[in-house]
Amino acid sequence: MQPTSEQLLKVHKRIESYIHRTPVLTSTLINQLTGAEIFFKCENFQKMGAFKMRGAANAILNLPKSKQKNGVVTHSSGNFAQALSLAAKSIGVPAYIVMPDTAPEVKKAAVRTYCGQITECPSTLKDRERTAAEIVKNTGATFIHPSNDLDVILGQGTAALELLQEQPELASIICPVGGGGLIAGSSLAVKHFGKKATCIGAEPKAADDAWRSLKSGKIEQNESAETIADGLKTQLGDVNFPIILDNVSEIIRVEEPEILEAMKLIWQHMKIIVEASSATTLAAIIKEKERFQAQKIGVILSGGNVDLDNLPF
Amino acid sequence: MQPTSEQLLKVHKRIESYIHRTPVLTSTLINQLTGAEIFFKCENFQKMGAFKMRGAANAILNLPKSKQKNGVVTHSSGNFAQALSLAAKSIGVPAYIVMPDTAPEVKKAAVRTYCGQITECPSTLKDRERTAAEIVKNTGATFIHPSNDLDVILGQGTAALELLQEQPELASIICPVGGGGLIAGSSLAVKHFGKKATCIGAEPKAADDAWRSLKSGKIEQNESAETIADGLKTQLGDVNFPIILDNVSEIIRVEEPEILEAMKLIWQHMKIIVEASSATTLAAIIKEKERFQAQKIGVILSGGNVDLDNLPF
Repeated sequence: MQPTSEQLLKVHKRIESYIHRTPVLTSTLINQLTGAEIFFKCENFQKMGAFKMRGAANAILNLPKSKQKNGVVTHSSGNFAQALSLAAKSIGVPAYIVMPDTAPEVKKAAVRTYCGQITECPSTLKDRERTAAEIVKNTGATFIHPSNDLDVILGQGTAALELLQEQPELASIICPVGGGGLIAGSSLAVKHFGKKATCIGAEPKAADDAWRSLKSGKIEQNESAETIADGLKTQLGDVNFPIILDNVSEIIRVEEPEILEAMKLIWQHMKIIVEASSATTLAAIIKEKERFQAQKIGVILSGGNVDLDNLPF
Repeated sequence: MQPTSEQLLKVHKRIESYIHRTPVLTSTLINQLTGAEIFFKCENFQKMGAFKMRGAANAILNLPKSKQKNGVVTHSSGNFAQALSLAAKSIGVPAYIVMPDTAPEVKKAAVRTYCGQITECPSTLKDRERTAAEIVKNTGATFIHPSNDLDVILGQGTAALELLQEQPELASIICPVGGGGLIAGSSLAVKHFGKKATCIGAEPKAADDAWRSLKSGKIEQNESAETIADGLKTQLGDVNFPIILDNVSEIIRVEEPEILEAMKLIWQHMKIIVEASSATTLAAIIKEKERFQAQKIGVILSGGNVDLDNLPF
């Protein structure tokens, strides 16, 4: 049975004091350009710079106290590593982060800022899983998956929940699709709190596993994933996929130059910094401009953690 | 006699519907880093992306209707060109913008977006003044100086006014110093509405004409002005200088690497886009860190119009 609206509201209440209620921004120029009325939910302004803080906080807070005190462990080199570290720090428990030894120093430094304890290992999935399992065994910490975990999914859904509380008349909510945690959670929020909204995913064509999964009805993988939207290379999981299959109406695929163009539009006109992953949403609206004419569209700007010394423009 | 608090409030009321009341943001990480409690007034989110919209709107709105209908003219290749164009468009009068023929296409395009009518001329000050004078003669339009005009100064002062309305207990307001319009206006707001605040300028060492002017008591010029804070190369004028001399307590000069570092801090931690000129303020706080410890400091982030294809990092 899928989570109820009460569950989602309870999660929101649980994490409320650990997250920012992020602002919803609009841009006259982008509205003129697209012909739609877009409401940007700015999770780039979320604590640690991405929506992942929501799911991480919920997953830790929902553990029994006896488990909580032993801490949490995950393997991630991206935003979830930072999110779990900061959430654990705020709650007062240790966070063990398994990172590939190839991870850039800037990402390790970010985890350390939030007091995450890093264990490096070779970069294969197998090595990361083995290393995480060892930490679980040695510390009694609980493993938390970045996207394929119901508590994480429900936490991520609270961004769309807040957006719908402010803009109940949205025709659609569009969010990026990576590992599937955000879109699964958002689709539950849309189902329970949207008056007439659909939930649409935006995905790079170069890593279109979710688009193919929705078509085939089973979890597909990416052979390669050469995209500037580096948060979206991961694949769906057995917890989030059934939710996505039931509640996401479609996924729109966008090309790399379209993502880059949309990213520049947001930076230039809104004066805010968003990751390439976030820009897939606006790219999807621009790509399918006609059907979104004069509609109120909600967009989840998922995060703003970019490497300023390594920008795509 | 210098403008009164009533005048400033009247200006604010006059322009209110033509501007955004921009948000005041804070950053836990930047506060930790500086030891101060900083309130950033985000004029990068202002219409057309900079505080200059305030002064431009006030200058046009304060013209008698008979003059207004003939339009306004200025010479600028920067934010004031866009500001005057957009303000004139909003009010429904023509804006004539004199730009050097060497101005980058991207700046001309921005002016055209707001329906400003561009006249190009050679890039010397003499040519620009002559061209503007011709337009005044031919059209009956009113010349409006980007910074050395009392209506412009009062308009610019409304950003600090709003900031003080929200944070009356500020110990200082720091703003960048270029042509002097912003700091003159801000210093009037501080004088009339600050409980105990001082008004401090931030200026690139490489273009420290205002710092020298404050020392010598007369308007000094820059021999050269090689700074990434390209909005701050201009010099003070005979209208704003007396106000600055009376109401600005000091100017802090910052080096180029300090400006760049502060700019990156704001981008990275606040996820907002600000111009290098805006970052001089935070650079000044970091430079003189000790004296700002535990103080509430207001900062005017003056604008966010950067060329993404030409970033300094």
